[in-house]
Order: sequence, then C-alpha cells, then structure tokens
Amino acid sequence: MNQEQKLVLAKLIRQQRWAALATVDAEGQPLAAMVAYAFNEDSSAFYIHVSQLSQHTKHMLAQPRISLVIGEPDIGGGDPQTLPRVSIGGVVEVLQRDSEAYLRAKAKYLNRLPDSEQLFGFGDFILFQLIPESLRFVGGFAQAHSLSAKTLAECSKLSLGE
Amino acid sequence: MNQEQKLVLAKLIRQQRWAALATVDAEGQPLAAMVAYAFNEDSSAFYIHVSQLSQHTKHMLAQPRISLVIGEPDIGGGDPQTLPRVSIGGVVEVLQRDSEAYLRAKAKYLNRLPDSEQLFGFGDFILFQLIPESLRFVGGFAQAHSLSAKTLAECSKLSLGE
Repeated sequence: MNQEQKLVLAKLIRQQRWAALATVDAEGQPLAAMVAYAFNEDSSAFYIHVSQLSQHTKHMLAQPRISLVIGEPDIGGGDPQTLPRVSIGGVVEVLQRDSEAYLRAKAKYLNRLPDSEQLFGFGDFILFQLIPESLRFVGGFAQAHSLSAKTLAECSKLSLGE
Repeated sequence: MNQEQKLVLAKLIRQQRWAALATVDAEGQPLAAMVAYAFNEDSSAFYIHVSQLSQHTKHMLAQPRISLVIGEPDIGGGDPQTLPRVSIGGVVEVLQRDSEAYLRAKAKYLNRLPDSEQLFGFGDFILFQLIPESLRFVGGFAQAHSLSAKTLAECSKLSLGE
C-alpha cells in the first residue's frame, strides 16, 4: 500500500462519522446496521455508543466479533464502486460506565459527535470499544489491500494538511 | 408506520445507490462491505453485482442469508443517529447469466448505475438477487419500525412528487 493510498485511508476514517456494522444473531444470521463511530489517537480502538434496545447491541453483547465498514458517501454520479471504503474486523468489549477508559472514550466520541451528548445520560446506552484485528481497504476499483492494525496506526499519524 | 414515514423509506431506497452488506464467513464471523444496489418495481427483489474475487461474494455463495443496510449519508453536521436507514434481511440467489431474470435485473441495475456497464463483461462478476424477508426501518432517533415485504411493496408505489 503506497503513501497515496495511506492518505486516502487516513482521510476516510477521519472525515466520516457514520458507518455500517455487521453483527450476527444467536442463529449465526448477519445483520447490517448503521452506527456512529469515534476512535483514539492511533486508531487502535474505535468507539460505538448504542442502545440496548437495538438488535445490533444485543448481538454484540452475545457475539463480540464484528465488522465495521466506513465508506466515503456516494454523491450520486459516476460509479460508487470506485469510492474508498475500509472494513474493520475485530472484537468489541463494553467499557464500564465511568471507568477511566470509558471517560476517555466518551471525550473522544463527543469531540466528533457533540450533538449526541444527551445519549450518555440514557441508562440503556452502552459504549463499546472495538479493537481492530483485520482490515480490508478498497481505495478504488480493483485497488484492494489487506492491512494490519500496525499499518492503520501509521496511517493515523499522517498529516492530511488540514 | 404512518404515511410520512413510508415516504421517508420510499425516498431513501430510491435516492441511494450505495449500501452496506453484512455476510458471514464459514466460521460464522460477520463481514461488513459496501455494495451498489438496484431493485425491481415493487422492491420485491434487490440486485447486487459483485466480483467473485471479493470476500463478501464468496460468503454469499456459501451462506446466502445476508443483510443490506441502506442509509442516508451523513452530511457531517448534527447527530447522524437521526438519519433514516433501513436494514433488509433476506436470502440471495445467483441469477444465471443471460437468463431472462438476469437480463431484466441487469437492465434495472444499469438504469441506476450506468457507469458500471463494463463490469457486466467481466467473467468474475455475479449478479445476485436478494429477496427481502425482514425489514427494520429507523426513520429518525427512536423511530424504529419492523415491517414486512408487503409494506415495502406499498412504499415502492408511493409518488415522491419527483
């Protein structure tokens, strides 16, 4: 994966906030659902804040192995299959409310999603941490790369010239 | 689900072209990936055209039960959790190349995604048909509805005043 592709990946993760989650139910059937996400400095953890009333939350509590796909939105012209996207596979764990890890993650989350602050006051919401294990980045048509969490960490350090 | 919500759902499916797919691998682990989609007149079938080189295609060939989530893109302001989205669960089947069903689906697909025509000339591409079985529509924050394929068909007949 060249430097240009790494920049595309870094920009993708930083610019988006809304992604799709794949979970499995008790029968092993998949569910795709939309979730907001945030992440820490080196992208070694992603944060998802969801209600226990949602199916995907119940799935994650029972089967913590999930996949999250972050994609650049389609603007409605051209072929969307050329748009960059990354699938992040890994395991989620619940951050215990008001633990240090929870408060750090909450701060990261609210920095990106300030309008969702009230949800942290709701008793049914859980803050999950996803630790990336396997990543598949598609930088454009027929430009797919498998990458490690280490490469993702390198990408997270790149300056986007913002 | 009231008329206003039905219109939001109808508009969502018609205006978007790029969605996220949840599949499972042989070990039952989920994968989230982005795919383009098209659909027929009454939304009783959705079409996905993907390469056999992709993991999600291999998964669908082995485990045809999938979930597709279509969401309105985040514009980067406010809380994305208020955005409408629908998760469509069902079973995919391969449309045999050059069968009548294949040609009808291809025409629908190219009507929405004209720039992807060349992919129909590639031997590794497969056109799948997804028959919706279970639907979960979230019209906004805390506005979730489970709906049947029949309700989806009703929505597909609504005029959006376009």
